[in-house]
Amino acid sequence: MITVGIDVGGTKIAGALVSETGEILMSLKVPTPADSTEELIEAVVSMVNELRADREIKAVGVAIAGFIDAARSEVIYSPNLSLRNEPLKAKLEAKLGVDVFVENDANAAGWAEYRFGAGQGSKHMMMITIGTGVGGAIVANGELFRGGFGIGAELGHANFIRDGKLCGCGQHGCLEKYASGTALLEAAKELAASGTAEGARLAELEAEVDELTGTQVYQAITESDPGALRLLNELGENIGKAVASLVAILDPQMLVVGGGLSVAGELLLKPIRNAFLEHLPARGYRPEMTIVTAALINDAGVVGAADLARTHSLER
Amino acid sequence: MITVGIDVGGTKIAGALVSETGEILMSLKVPTPADSTEELIEAVVSMVNELRADREIKAVGVAIAGFIDAARSEVIYSPNLSLRNEPLKAKLEAKLGVDVFVENDANAAGWAEYRFGAGQGSKHMMMITIGTGVGGAIVANGELFRGGFGIGAELGHANFIRDGKLCGCGQHGCLEKYASGTALLEAAKELAASGTAEGARLAELEAEVDELTGTQVYQAITESDPGALRLLNELGENIGKAVASLVAILDPQMLVVGGGLSVAGELLLKPIRNAFLEHLPARGYRPEMTIVTAALINDAGVVGAADLARTHSLER
Repeated sequence: MITVGIDVGGTKIAGALVSETGEILMSLKVPTPADSTEELIEAVVSMVNELRADREIKAVGVAIAGFIDAARSEVIYSPNLSLRNEPLKAKLEAKLGVDVFVENDANAAGWAEYRFGAGQGSKHMMMITIGTGVGGAIVANGELFRGGFGIGAELGHANFIRDGKLCGCGQHGCLEKYASGTALLEAAKELAASGTAEGARLAELEAEVDELTGTQVYQAITESDPGALRLLNELGENIGKAVASLVAILDPQMLVVGGGLSVAGELLLKPIRNAFLEHLPARGYRPEMTIVTAALINDAGVVGAADLARTHSLER
Repeated sequence: MITVGIDVGGTKIAGALVSETGEILMSLKVPTPADSTEELIEAVVSMVNELRADREIKAVGVAIAGFIDAARSEVIYSPNLSLRNEPLKAKLEAKLGVDVFVENDANAAGWAEYRFGAGQGSKHMMMITIGTGVGGAIVANGELFRGGFGIGAELGHANFIRDGKLCGCGQHGCLEKYASGTALLEAAKELAASGTAEGARLAELEAEVDELTGTQVYQAITESDPGALRLLNELGENIGKAVASLVAILDPQMLVVGGGLSVAGELLLKPIRNAFLEHLPARGYRPEMTIVTAALINDAGVVGAADLARTHSLER
């Protein structure tokens, strides 16, 4: 059964026709309309229609950042898209005439890794995504763990430093203030502006240090610039420390590290692994958790959304 | 179907005959043999035999502190009882001739609250127990959440203060160092020894401040002693802050506060509720979680163990 998966991001909407083995048969991408919810919905509808063409599709999955209600139908709150209590499922079903399943984007990505990616075979998996923010997904006993109101697994908002930096969520010290791509870029700008030898390469890459980009920081990392490597290492250590605490609660068999920064591979995994083992409560008595990078990266959202729509549609 | 529940604690073993509606039909208590695992097992066997007498019992549940493996058969590690990789299920089944189900004590207590106590009707529940240490249990979608290796929900070892006080688990800054009965007693001893007006009542209750007991601290609380009340308040605030972070991950509909300190009732719940709401990430967008005290307290372990044994036996 082929389904459609749509991933609504802050800047672009990605969509794909996905087979039941997770293969992408066709994919599309358009900019996210910034002006109104109706335009956003129209963009999704157009994309689904283009993807399905003359083919009969029974279900569409939509991955979107934010809080989705427990019934997977309403977007309670999506910070980047300014959606609030939006009955997205009903609106899309009325226009598309097929089952629509709405899921949090990190959950969809985690589900894709569990079904077809790095998390295959591990029925208890935790994914942490390191991108603009820090997101998470939990698979417990082979099912997505969504929580009682549908809004669990917000690993980026686990407290990391008591009374630490102010986060966009209104609280202080959330993990994502210390371990996201945004946090890394902020630290890189500070280092570039410091005038130290360690920041020299970063300052060279971008004379206006405030304009430094993630791509430039990543370039410095691939060049083995000691300053950029130290910052990446510290980010990895922060993730590892946080994961140690999360493991005491969630006890997964496998951690999948995803999101944009996971392309750094072992440079990121090594400090995560080391800090995790060092900070694990009662570590001598725990079976070993596997730590790997995500396999699907950019496609995880659409593939996961499509597969959730498929399995949900089959269950009905 | 009547089953037997046994709760093996560090100082005593409690046991009961429990009906399928959670009623205790008969109960027993003996000191925990401190010398050997074999004596411990014999004490459990004797207790089960006394409880079942001539009645045919199909299943026995055993609640015990520590890490229990995912198959609920082996005690990987029990800090208070010095058990390590102990095949408790097999040994007890050989001696008793009935199904034995081994469960972590906090999980058993949480299950009892969900089935027959304060958590009834809430399929997504989190329990935090505040006693000598801080323990936890998670019910997700009507089932105990155990994690991939069987050792999840160790809420007392969620990091509370980065690089904070050294914990018995080998790590620094675990919640239980800031919010357990032990932590409260330590703080009370310090206050009593401070020579301040605020510590006067505590110092009066026990001239040798190092000998101050939990019972005496509780007495000061019931007398509304400002010093003891402030310490209880701070403990509640710490629990509330930690719960705010746990809710971002677990998203329960209800929090049940159990353990010895929960007898303080509203004196404890009020600071928990206030600190929780104040520290909840994206709090304006979250449905309200209910916070209540446990209903079963001392009986939760035996009742939960008995019910888990019953449902597990029925599933086979």
